[in-house]
Amino acid sequence: MTAQTAVPAPAAHEVVDDLVRGRVAGQSLEAPFYTSEEVYRRDLDVIFARNWIFVAAAAEIPEPGDYVTVDVGEYSVIVVRDDDEQVRAFHNVCRHRGSRLLPERQGAVGNIVCPYHRWTYGVDGRLRFAESQPATFDTTCFSLRPVHVRDLAGLVFICLAEQAPQDFDAVAEVLEPHLRPYELGKAKVAATYDLAEAGNWKLVMENNRECYHCDGHPELITAYFPLFAYEAEDITPRLKPLYDRYVKAAEALEKIRAAHGLPLTDHRELDTRVVGFQLSHLPLDGEGKSFAPNGGAVCRTLMGQVQDAAFGDLSLHLQPNSWFHLLSDHAVVFSVLPTSTGTSTLRTTWLVHPAAVEGVDYDLDALTAVWRATNDQDRALVAGTQAGCSDPGYVPGPYSMVEDDVEAFVNWYVTRLREAIA
Amino acid sequence: MTAQTAVPAPAAHEVVDDLVRGRVAGQSLEAPFYTSEEVYRRDLDVIFARNWIFVAAAAEIPEPGDYVTVDVGEYSVIVVRDDDEQVRAFHNVCRHRGSRLLPERQGAVGNIVCPYHRWTYGVDGRLRFAESQPATFDTTCFSLRPVHVRDLAGLVFICLAEQAPQDFDAVAEVLEPHLRPYELGKAKVAATYDLAEAGNWKLVMENNRECYHCDGHPELITAYFPLFAYEAEDITPRLKPLYDRYVKAAEALEKIRAAHGLPLTDHRELDTRVVGFQLSHLPLDGEGKSFAPNGGAVCRTLMGQVQDAAFGDLSLHLQPNSWFHLLSDHAVVFSVLPTSTGTSTLRTTWLVHPAAVEGVDYDLDALTAVWRATNDQDRALVAGTQAGCSDPGYVPGPYSMVEDDVEAFVNWYVTRLREAIA
Amino acid sequence: MTAQTAVPAPAAHEVVDDLVRGRVAGQSLEAPFYTSEEVYRRDLDVIFARNWIFVAAAAEIPEPGDYVTVDVGEYSVIVVRDDDEQVRAFHNVCRHRGSRLLPERQGAVGNIVCPYHRWTYGVDGRLRFAESQPATFDTTCFSLRPVHVRDLAGLVFICLAEQAPQDFDAVAEVLEPHLRPYELGKAKVAATYDLAEAGNWKLVMENNRECYHCDGHPELITAYFPLFAYEAEDITPRLKPLYDRYVKAAEALEKIRAAHGLPLTDHRELDTRVVGFQLSHLPLDGEGKSFAPNGGAVCRTLMGQVQDAAFGDLSLHLQPNSWFHLLSDHAVVFSVLPTSTGTSTLRTTWLVHPAAVEGVDYDLDALTAVWRATNDQDRALVAGTQAGCSDPGYVPGPYSMVEDDVEAFVNWYVTRLREAIA
Repeated sequence: MTAQTAVPAPAAHEVVDDLVRGRVAGQSLEAPFYTSEEVYRRDLDVIFARNWIFVAAAAEIPEPGDYVTVDVGEYSVIVVRDDDEQVRAFHNVCRHRGSRLLPERQGAVGNIVCPYHRWTYGVDGRLRFAESQPATFDTTCFSLRPVHVRDLAGLVFICLAEQAPQDFDAVAEVLEPHLRPYELGKAKVAATYDLAEAGNWKLVMENNRECYHCDGHPELITAYFPLFAYEAEDITPRLKPLYDRYVKAAEALEKIRAAHGLPLTDHRELDTRVVGFQLSHLPLDGEGKSFAPNGGAVCRTLMGQVQDAAFGDLSLHLQPNSWFHLLSDHAVVFSVLPTSTGTSTLRTTWLVHPAAVEGVDYDLDALTAVWRATNDQDRALVAGTQAGCSDPGYVPGPYSMVEDDVEAFVNWYVTRLREAIA
Repeated sequence: MTAQTAVPAPAAHEVVDDLVRGRVAGQSLEAPFYTSEEVYRRDLDVIFARNWIFVAAAAEIPEPGDYVTVDVGEYSVIVVRDDDEQVRAFHNVCRHRGSRLLPERQGAVGNIVCPYHRWTYGVDGRLRFAESQPATFDTTCFSLRPVHVRDLAGLVFICLAEQAPQDFDAVAEVLEPHLRPYELGKAKVAATYDLAEAGNWKLVMENNRECYHCDGHPELITAYFPLFAYEAEDITPRLKPLYDRYVKAAEALEKIRAAHGLPLTDHRELDTRVVGFQLSHLPLDGEGKSFAPNGGAVCRTLMGQVQDAAFGDLSLHLQPNSWFHLLSDHAVVFSVLPTSTGTSTLRTTWLVHPAAVEGVDYDLDALTAVWRATNDQDRALVAGTQAGCSDPGYVPGPYSMVEDDVEAFVNWYVTRLREAIA
Repeated sequence: MTAQTAVPAPAAHEVVDDLVRGRVAGQSLEAPFYTSEEVYRRDLDVIFARNWIFVAAAAEIPEPGDYVTVDVGEYSVIVVRDDDEQVRAFHNVCRHRGSRLLPERQGAVGNIVCPYHRWTYGVDGRLRFAESQPATFDTTCFSLRPVHVRDLAGLVFICLAEQAPQDFDAVAEVLEPHLRPYELGKAKVAATYDLAEAGNWKLVMENNRECYHCDGHPELITAYFPLFAYEAEDITPRLKPLYDRYVKAAEALEKIRAAHGLPLTDHRELDTRVVGFQLSHLPLDGEGKSFAPNGGAVCRTLMGQVQDAAFGDLSLHLQPNSWFHLLSDHAVVFSVLPTSTGTSTLRTTWLVHPAAVEGVDYDLDALTAVWRATNDQDRALVAGTQAGCSDPGYVPGPYSMVEDDVEAFVNWYVTRLREAIA
C-alpha cells in the first residue's frame, strides 16, 4: 500500500538521542524530557538502574529480618537486615515462576517465603527449600538475585546495575564525618509517608533545587535567611539588618561546630562527578535551633552525639533523587522515585533520637508540620508545571540568577544521558 | 536476531495516509478514524490546530480581565478581554519554566501572575515583571505566545496555526447580518455545562448532523416539523396535514423576517469551503416560538432587537466542531472538543437577553430542559457507536437518504486530511 | 537530524517472533509474554480469534430469543437461540454506522433492534427493516456478520476465524459420551459471576493447570486425594493409608460408571492437537459425592440421568481458555477471557438439575462456597505473579515435577504462535 521511496521517520530512540545532544544550557529542558514515554524508559535505564539511589533510612530496619520494599520504576527491591546485621538487597521476585515475594511496604520475617508455591529463602537470599523437585535440582542456582546496597552513616543506597559507580566510596569518605554526629543508623523513625506527585520525577527534583519559589512556603522560610545566592554587593540598605543577623548566626554556628571538632567546609560537586552532591551548613534564623516558629526546637532530645541545640541545618543534596535536612533535634530525609512519565512518589521520613518519646519529647504534628505543608505546596507547583510542559504551547525558558542548582541538576542528568549514548 | 530480508511494515503515519486516500464516499468511515491514536494525533494537528474552532460565547467574558480557559487536545488557551475591550487569546503556559498560568475554567484577573515564580503578564500578554533576572534580561522577548482569535457577532473562534485560514472573513460577512439582531455579544449567560462524551469527537459531530435518530429525542422533536430532507413528492396522504401546517408556518416566518428587513436566504456550504457552514431558518411547530411544549416560549424577554416571538430557529452548523440554535427568546451554542481518541467534551451554553431575570423572566430548568435531555440521549448513542466501531467485527455501512449532512461533514474532514498529505 | 548509518532496531513483531522461536521448554515464559502489548495483540489474533473458545453454557439461553453477549478482547459477540432452537452467534455491531446492538450481558429479544436508527434484525441475523433507504437498497447484503458456533452437549463454543479448526469434530466425538449423562443443555443456571483478574489470561490458565499451590485452597483440597502426578513408588509409609483410600475410591467409581455403561477412559491430549484437552475421572475423598465438607452433596437432586451420588468429578480441561468440573449433583464451568495485557475476566457458572429448587434442594451459598473461595485465593496468586513478571528483575524459572500440565498449556500456546509465524 505504501510508496517504496518514503524516507523512514527517525525511530523514537534516535529522536531522544538528538534531544539529549542538542540540549541548550541555561534554560529549562525541552518538553519531551517531561512527557515522552521513550525518555521515561531511558531515565529508568540510564539514571535509576545505573546510579546509586537513596531508598531508605537504615533506622527503618533496625533488627535482623526487618525489611522494607522499594519500587524503582517497575523494579521492586527488598532491603532487609541480614542475621549478621548487615543490610542486604534483593529483587523482590521468586526464582520459580516470578511471583512477587513480599507485597507489603515493610515488615519483619524469619525467612522470605513465596506465597505461591512456598519456595523459601533465607534473609541472606539463599534458597533453603522448594518442594517436588527432581534429584538434579540445585538450590544454589536459585538464590534471590542480589542488588548492590550501601549503608552510609545510616542512609541506605542501592544500585541496580551490574557494576555500580565506584565514585560512591570517595563521596562517602567526604560525607561520613559530617553525618556521624547525628547517628542516623541508631535513630528512631518518628514518621514516614508517601506523597503521590503529579509530575515527572525531574520536575520534583528541580523544584527542590531552588528557593526562587519560596514565597509559596510561609512555614518553611521563617527558619532560613532568605539570602540564597546573594553576594555582599547585592545587600541593599533595606536588607542590611537581615544580613547582619545572618553573619552573626553564621559566626556562632562556626564556633559551635569548631567546639565539637567537626568539619566546617561546604562542598558543591553537583555536576562535576557521577555521585553528584552538595553539602551545606546553614545557620537558622530566630532561636537558630529548628523548624518551630521563630527557629525553636521541635524535639527535646538532641540527635546522636549533638550537644548544642543551635546546630544549624546540615543540608545535603544528592543526585539524582534525594535531599536531607539534619538538625540538632531531628532529621528529615527525602527520596523521589518515578512511577510513570508524569507521576512520581516523594517519600519523607522523620528521624529523632532513639530515646525520644512521642507526646513527651516531641509532638508528632509539630515535628512534621513544616515539611508536610511544604511538600503539599510543592506538589501543586509541580503538577502545574507538568500540565504546562505537556502543552504544545510550551517553549523552554531561561533560568534566573538564583536557579543555578536547577541548572546543575539538569547538567548532571544530561551528562549521564550523553555518556550512555556515547 | 532478525532476518535481514524482512519487508518493513508500513509506519503508522503511512497506514493513515492510505486510509485517508482510500476513503469511500457514501458510507461511514473505517474504524481507525475513531479508534487509532495516530488518527487522533493527526486530527489535533490538521483539524484542531489549523482551523477556526468555536470555543466560547463573548458574553462569558463581558469585562476587561474576564477570562475563560479552553482545552483543545493538549493545548490550553486563555481567552481574555483586554483593557481595550478586545478579546485576546494566549497559550496558557509561563515563558519561564512552563507552569500552567490559569488552572481554573474561568475567572477575572488584573494581571496574569504565574503561581510558580510570580512572573507577571498583562492581559495584553506582555511580561511586566520577573524577579532575580540579570541586567541583560529583555522582558519583551517573553510575552505570552499569542493565538489567533475572532469575535463574530458574539461568538469567539480561535485558530492555533501560524497562518489562520483567510476564508473566515468571507463567511463572517455572510453570517453577520443573520446573527446581528440577536446581539449575542451583549447577552447574559444563563447556564453552561460540560458533558463528557465517551466517543471520538467525530462521532459526536456526526450524531449532530442528522435527525435519522430523532425518534430518540421526544423532547426535541415536538418543536420541529419532522420533514428533514423531504421533497414535495415524498408527502403521502397521511403526511399531508403536517405538510400543510409546515408550509403555512414557513410562509408566516418569511413574512415576519421580511417585516424586520432581515435576510431570508439559507446557505449550505458544508464541504465546499475551508470554513464549512450551513445556515437555515427553520419554522417551528405549534405556537412556533421556542422549545417549551407545543412550541411555547421559555423566556419572557426577547433576544437583542428581536421583536416577534414567532421568529423560528436560526440553525447554524460550522465545521469542524460547533452548532447553534438562535430563537426569539434564547440561544444555545455548542462546541465539541477532543480529549482523547475515544472521548470528547461537549460544552453547551444558554444565552438570554441581558435584562432577563432568572425566576422572573425564565425558569432555568425549563430553559435548559430540552437540550439537557437531548444531549444525554445523544451521549448514550455516541458511546454505543464508539464501542461498536472499536469492535474488529465493524465494517463501514451505507448512509441513508437523510444523512447527507453527515456525509458532508465527513467529506469536509477527509478533504482537510487529504490537503495536509498533499 | 539522525545519522544515516544507524542500524534499524527490530520492529516489535520481529522481537516477538524471536521470543516465540526461542522459547526454552521446561521453564516459565519470558516476561514479555505476560507484559507486552505486542504479545497481547498477537494472543488476540492467533489464539482467541482463530481457535474454538468456550463462552457460555447453553442453559443460559434456554428459549428462542434468549441471548448472552460475550467480550473476547475487543470483540463483542451475540450468542442467541434462534426460533428453530439452534444457537447462533453474530458480531454485536450494526451494519449501518457500527453502533453496539445489545449492550447488556444477557436478555431476551424478539428481534435485534439497533438503538441508534432502529435497523431491525431477526435472531437469525437477517436485516428485516431499515428506514429511509433508496429503492436500490438490498437488505440481504446487510445481515449481521456471523461467527462460528458449536453446542457440545450443552457447552457453547465460538470461533471468530473465517475457517474454524476442523479438529473440533473429532474432540467432540470423544467428549460427548462422557458429557451426555449430565444433560448440561437442559440444566438450570444456579449462579454465574465474573471475577476481574489482575493478570494476563495465561497466568490465570497456568494457575488452573497445577495443584502445586493447593495448600492455599483449604476448602477445595478436602474433596480431592492430594496425589496428583504421584507414581506408586512415590508412596511413602506416611502416605500409605491415604493411598489405600484412594485406590478403594477409584475402584468403586469404576464399578459405578460401568454399571451406568459409561466410558471409563481418561484422555490427555493437552498439546498434541489443535483442540487440546484433558478429560479425567477423579474419585473424591470422604463421602465421595461432592464439594460439601467431607465430600458430602451440595444439592439433593442429581444431574441429568446420573443415578449415583458417588459419581466422582469429571474434570475437563480445554485449551486455551476453559475448565469444567462435573459432579453428580452440580457442574461448575469456567471461562477465561482477556481484557488487556495485564487483566482478564474469569466467568464461573454453576449448573444444577432443572427441577432443583433453591432453598429446598440446595443452598446457594453452600453450592458456590468452594469455588468462590478458590477463585479469590487464585486471584491473589495471579495478581502477585503478574506483578513479579512485570519486574525487570524477573527471570524464567524451572517447573517442578508436578507442573507438567502447565508445561503442556505453554507448549500448546507456543505451538500455535509458531504455526502462525510459519
